[in-house]
Amino acid sequence: METLNFKKLAEQYKTELFNNVIPFWLNQSQDKDFGGYFTCLDRKGDVFDTDKFIWLQGREVWLFSMLYNQVEKRQEWLDAAIQGAEFLKKYGHDGNLNWYFSLTREGKPLVEPYNIFSYTFASMAFGQLSKATGNEEYAKIARDTFNIVLSKTGNPKGKWNKAFPGTRNLKSFALPMILCNLALEIEHLLDEEFLKETMDACIHEVMDVFYRPELGLVVENLNEDETLSDTFEGRVLNPGHSIEAMWFIMDLGVRLHRPELVTKANEIALKMVEHGWDKEFGGIFYFMDRKGHPVQQLEWDQKLWWVHIETLITMLKGYQLTGSEKSLEWFKKVHDYVWSHFKDEEYPEWFGYLNRRGEVLLPLKGGKWKGCFHVPRGLYQCWQTLEKIDQKGQL
Amino acid sequence: METLNFKKLAEQYKTELFNNVIPFWLNQSQDKDFGGYFTCLDRKGDVFDTDKFIWLQGREVWLFSMLYNQVEKRQEWLDAAIQGAEFLKKYGHDGNLNWYFSLTREGKPLVEPYNIFSYTFASMAFGQLSKATGNEEYAKIARDTFNIVLSKTGNPKGKWNKAFPGTRNLKSFALPMILCNLALEIEHLLDEEFLKETMDACIHEVMDVFYRPELGLVVENLNEDETLSDTFEGRVLNPGHSIEAMWFIMDLGVRLHRPELVTKANEIALKMVEHGWDKEFGGIFYFMDRKGHPVQQLEWDQKLWWVHIETLITMLKGYQLTGSEKSLEWFKKVHDYVWSHFKDEEYPEWFGYLNRRGEVLLPLKGGKWKGCFHVPRGLYQCWQTLEKIDQKGQL
Repeated sequence: METLNFKKLAEQYKTELFNNVIPFWLNQSQDKDFGGYFTCLDRKGDVFDTDKFIWLQGREVWLFSMLYNQVEKRQEWLDAAIQGAEFLKKYGHDGNLNWYFSLTREGKPLVEPYNIFSYTFASMAFGQLSKATGNEEYAKIARDTFNIVLSKTGNPKGKWNKAFPGTRNLKSFALPMILCNLALEIEHLLDEEFLKETMDACIHEVMDVFYRPELGLVVENLNEDETLSDTFEGRVLNPGHSIEAMWFIMDLGVRLHRPELVTKANEIALKMVEHGWDKEFGGIFYFMDRKGHPVQQLEWDQKLWWVHIETLITMLKGYQLTGSEKSLEWFKKVHDYVWSHFKDEEYPEWFGYLNRRGEVLLPLKGGKWKGCFHVPRGLYQCWQTLEKIDQKGQL
Repeated sequence: METLNFKKLAEQYKTELFNNVIPFWLNQSQDKDFGGYFTCLDRKGDVFDTDKFIWLQGREVWLFSMLYNQVEKRQEWLDAAIQGAEFLKKYGHDGNLNWYFSLTREGKPLVEPYNIFSYTFASMAFGQLSKATGNEEYAKIARDTFNIVLSKTGNPKGKWNKAFPGTRNLKSFALPMILCNLALEIEHLLDEEFLKETMDACIHEVMDVFYRPELGLVVENLNEDETLSDTFEGRVLNPGHSIEAMWFIMDLGVRLHRPELVTKANEIALKMVEHGWDKEFGGIFYFMDRKGHPVQQLEWDQKLWWVHIETLITMLKGYQLTGSEKSLEWFKKVHDYVWSHFKDEEYPEWFGYLNRRGEVLLPLKGGKWKGCFHVPRGLYQCWQTLEKIDQKGQL
């Protein structure tokens, strides 16, 4: 394999972040009239729909707060975060921190608080912003919302859960996986002992429960007794999801000084990317069935931006922390795919949805699920990790 | 345009129905141990999942009852229908005809009765079977379920509705559209006056409310006050859905001796098929946005079996009833697409899901949504209509 110029690569990710992606969201997404952010932006960045989705509102608050905390105390980033947070604080929940799924442009609730990830991303947003501002009200929102999330782990959808109780109670990978990340995000707001317990519980769920050594794969759903379920939900794999979880685990491994956790996470990520890679057209599949049966998700063969960007982060961290050449090879392969397929050479920001062949399926830059999050977070994480690799090489 | 040999075509549809599709479902889908039907069948017809979905259980009961009533008093068809109906009667609902969405193989409820179409297809099933058997219990189930459907039109999802009340109350095309068909299906069980009122109401909703002359298109969702909604739900078009509705309307036009209704339905169907046709790769898109914006449905560009099969029926009925050459041209075009793309030349039954290019996306013959319904109903309807056209030509 050709030698990579890590310095040049770091510069490429950094430039894309600050010269392309961040200006796009700063200029195109802020709603100056009602507050919050537009996320339904077409190829050129024009607003094509004004509904506001709590996942994406929270994630954009988080992103600008994170840049302010980690990169530079730039006022326009803080202002962007605060205006979004104020909109969320006022309209995003029912008064008791039950976070709606979506709002109208003006902030009227559209969809009830059925989705637990509206809560997790709100907590992440206010946690990061409280670090930037020292504002105790924001800290309290983050902490209280986190506690509500923990109280809902048994039945995250509450009364909107359509599963008939008792017949087939499945547990899902998504929540412990996100909690692995959230625990580190709001570490500064939690009691040390409680934080440690929560981290251990999440790590256990991800690495000992949902990772199945007999398959060498991470599954998305299990029976309550932690056995495999031979059902649509129990067979489905989401390679991007589990690869993303592995860099959360690597971060936890670093934080907790557990190098064996980092090594194991890197091994699992390599298995998932090998399993998920489309050998015919390149790119990583969105959904697969672990037994090779047809999946329910009609979009199974599509290539999604977040899957690939999260994989870049995981592979780079894997290489940085373990020195695995395989991880570096996969980084290179996915890097080539990402830059030649997801980056829009004509207009700012990146495409989100490609068909199996890697052709643009939807030309949007933002929508109901794609906002100011995976692209800039991924560029930031890759830039930072590439700089660390470069510096280590120079020592 | 070349002259079509309607007699030969009628034979082609009839042969496919009785030599390929019906034997497939009779032999592969019946669960001899627990009753009801398997519908998750792979390319060869082997069961890959045993969950039972009420939509598809009801539709298969309907299909075999309909064949028995309309084609021939064949005992194996009646037996197949009755065994499915007995399973549904026993396990399909909560004791008060609230129809679950899905069951385990053994009949335990999996998903709560949140979906109104579980009710409509149950009513359709028991209605058709009551005609075949004269069984009053079946008739009562059909009638009572129909009344429950009507009582739920205001909020079909009941407590599982995630829309926040009052902010954006949309009404959907799907329910009045299905009721157009269901009213004729259970005509023999309804009071004449009530039937007439129901038919008039459905026709009004479909033709005067959801069909928008200013667009020349049928929309899927409207504001409660019947104005257009510039939202994801309000912009979405489902060409196959509205084209299917137009043959229901044509059937009602024939039943009610309203030829002007048939003519209008044919015109609307032609507009929708022209709008929905993929000029690059052929086939009819699954979802579109009426303003050309990106849709939420990632599967928007896929080519689905039912969309195309329903279009064949509508175009043939349009030609038969109005003599429109345009309808015949579209029949020919869609017929060529269907037989060269959906029919599996190696194994029985037809593919259901193709990508935009018309390549097989999922090799299943049945699943959560594809069962013993659109293919055999479509083959039956086309066969019958082609025979009528042929006989008229010979007069």
